[in-house]
Amino acid sequence: MKKIEETIMGIKPLDEKAMAEARSRQDNLTKPQGSLGHLESLSIQIAGIKGNPRPRITHKVIFTLVGDHGVTREGVSAYPSEVTPQMVYNFLRGGAAINVLARQIGARVIVVDLGVASVLERNPQLKEKKVALGTHNIAEEPAMSHEEAIRAIEAGIELVEEELPKGIDILGTGDMGIGNTTASSAITTALTGTDVTKVTGRGTGLNDEGWKRKVKVIEKALKINRPNPKDAIDVLSKVGGFEIGGIAGVILAGARYQIPVVIDGFISGAAALIATSLSPEVKPYLIASHQSVEQGHKIILEHLGLKPLLNLDLRLGEGTGAALGIFLVEASLKILDEMATFTEAGVSEKND
Amino acid sequence: MKKIEETIMGIKPLDEKAMAEARSRQDNLTKPQGSLGHLESLSIQIAGIKGNPRPRITHKVIFTLVGDHGVTREGVSAYPSEVTPQMVYNFLRGGAAINVLARQIGARVIVVDLGVASVLERNPQLKEKKVALGTHNIAEEPAMSHEEAIRAIEAGIELVEEELPKGIDILGTGDMGIGNTTASSAITTALTGTDVTKVTGRGTGLNDEGWKRKVKVIEKALKINRPNPKDAIDVLSKVGGFEIGGIAGVILAGARYQIPVVIDGFISGAAALIATSLSPEVKPYLIASHQSVEQGHKIILEHLGLKPLLNLDLRLGEGTGAALGIFLVEASLKILDEMATFTEAGVSEKND
Repeated sequence: MKKIEETIMGIKPLDEKAMAEARSRQDNLTKPQGSLGHLESLSIQIAGIKGNPRPRITHKVIFTLVGDHGVTREGVSAYPSEVTPQMVYNFLRGGAAINVLARQIGARVIVVDLGVASVLERNPQLKEKKVALGTHNIAEEPAMSHEEAIRAIEAGIELVEEELPKGIDILGTGDMGIGNTTASSAITTALTGTDVTKVTGRGTGLNDEGWKRKVKVIEKALKINRPNPKDAIDVLSKVGGFEIGGIAGVILAGARYQIPVVIDGFISGAAALIATSLSPEVKPYLIASHQSVEQGHKIILEHLGLKPLLNLDLRLGEGTGAALGIFLVEASLKILDEMATFTEAGVSEKND
Repeated sequence: MKKIEETIMGIKPLDEKAMAEARSRQDNLTKPQGSLGHLESLSIQIAGIKGNPRPRITHKVIFTLVGDHGVTREGVSAYPSEVTPQMVYNFLRGGAAINVLARQIGARVIVVDLGVASVLERNPQLKEKKVALGTHNIAEEPAMSHEEAIRAIEAGIELVEEELPKGIDILGTGDMGIGNTTASSAITTALTGTDVTKVTGRGTGLNDEGWKRKVKVIEKALKINRPNPKDAIDVLSKVGGFEIGGIAGVILAGARYQIPVVIDGFISGAAALIATSLSPEVKPYLIASHQSVEQGHKIILEHLGLKPLLNLDLRLGEGTGAALGIFLVEASLKILDEMATFTEAGVSEKND
């Protein structure tokens, strides 16, 4: 818990001076003021995060955290749990969607085992932060112990710290874990008070019957485990997942080290709920890449006051939306840095 | 008119076989079917456009067409007309927003004078397709003659044909022209029948009083000129602009030469209304990059049945939204081309 507390203590407010300078520069670039909308506000936010009125981005990192979920025994997913380790090997071979998009934007993908339910083959590309061999079945008992929840979050913080020497100018969060939309729905209900039916989607592809079963399982998990909405670590331990705790740690560490945090979809959103519940100071560091088809994601984004940049009906996870979001953040900074001002270009300004 | 007719005659329906093959491949890639949403449908659309089940994109071209508008004399814009040529020079020096974003995505920007109201300095980077020195004031008379409207569209077709030898795998449309949201609102009302107040926005930054004046000017222009909603060339000549006609030509030629056409904001949208009115076969070739803050753009996208990819509150034009949209199309094609299939990756498929 000490590492989490130290990380939270280290989170500073955004640098207002850098933001004011960035805003002033945006207003003097050769375009009507505000005409690049969120590309302008994004660049100002990043200036504040980095304490630099004209920041550039070189090192882009996507953290794809993986964990298994005991609740899959309740038939809440369209895919079997064995897909979790299979997809890890797919990530390591570069054949998954996140690999493709990370290559396109020039980002490193850090694949991390937080709690896969099997022992994975060693691979120099796979980071090992396994807390346990998958969570317990939340329909019967808590997902993990209080200590394991802390360990998962701390592992996420460590991941960022271990990458710092190689450089991280921006990070994206990502997840993989069959069953993790069930855990994320439970977390969302616990931390926002929204009804389970409103935060539960079809995950990787449930039919109507499967969706109804999933809702009942989540309701049961919340009833049995009684997560304390005032205590995000309790929520994580009762109905969460190891990769979700890890992502919460990545988010906290991103804020601590003044790194813009581009969050992906529903699972990353649930992790962001945990991180912001532990420390509301994290919020200004967050950028929402897209709004997932998973209906709970909309609830989360509203709760966090975040507006998604993309309209693509994604529901894959892995960090795919975050990768596209990182491209847009980079666009916003290139605009801020590379455009000519009215004076430089000899362009007339607005009529009074 | 012959060139326009030949171009329209050359537009073919999308290749269903290529689309079916692309869809089949998408369904076998290591992700739940449909989980990449519009990235999947975009890739299938491009496969159909190119008649290739696994297309790649190398040559990206953004056409930024420029023209002036006599209606600026009515005080409908926050910026003076002199900004139009000033921005052309800014484009040519690489200091505008479109230059920055085109560099980021690796696209060529073709800057074209369709009807700037002054004689521009010669520059090897500037394409010369001037139809006239700006349009007439539509609040008093038709913007241009019928012949000039045809000439503007044909110039757009020529632009695409002249770039074909250098390669165009995808194109984006863009515009610059003080006063052109006024013309675009008038076109939108003429071709969709929507009330002027619903299709008129604040352009580069009008206040309430300016907006009311702009609405009155557009209403007057439509009343005086009586554009025939069944005849898109009549609409263009009565209340349009040279750059808008040129963009309509670029769109027609894109469809003719099986090039995906990524349309930008409100002005490109008005041009798309003209192009699709001349030939509804153009529609499947169109991709809407974003939805502009200009309220008329939403009406246009609904009319064309297009869903925007980005949520960025842009209202700049130049092709800026199109550039970002081209990046997303490229992402969709990399997903289709580079991801592993379930069989290749040894990943289990969905439970029955």
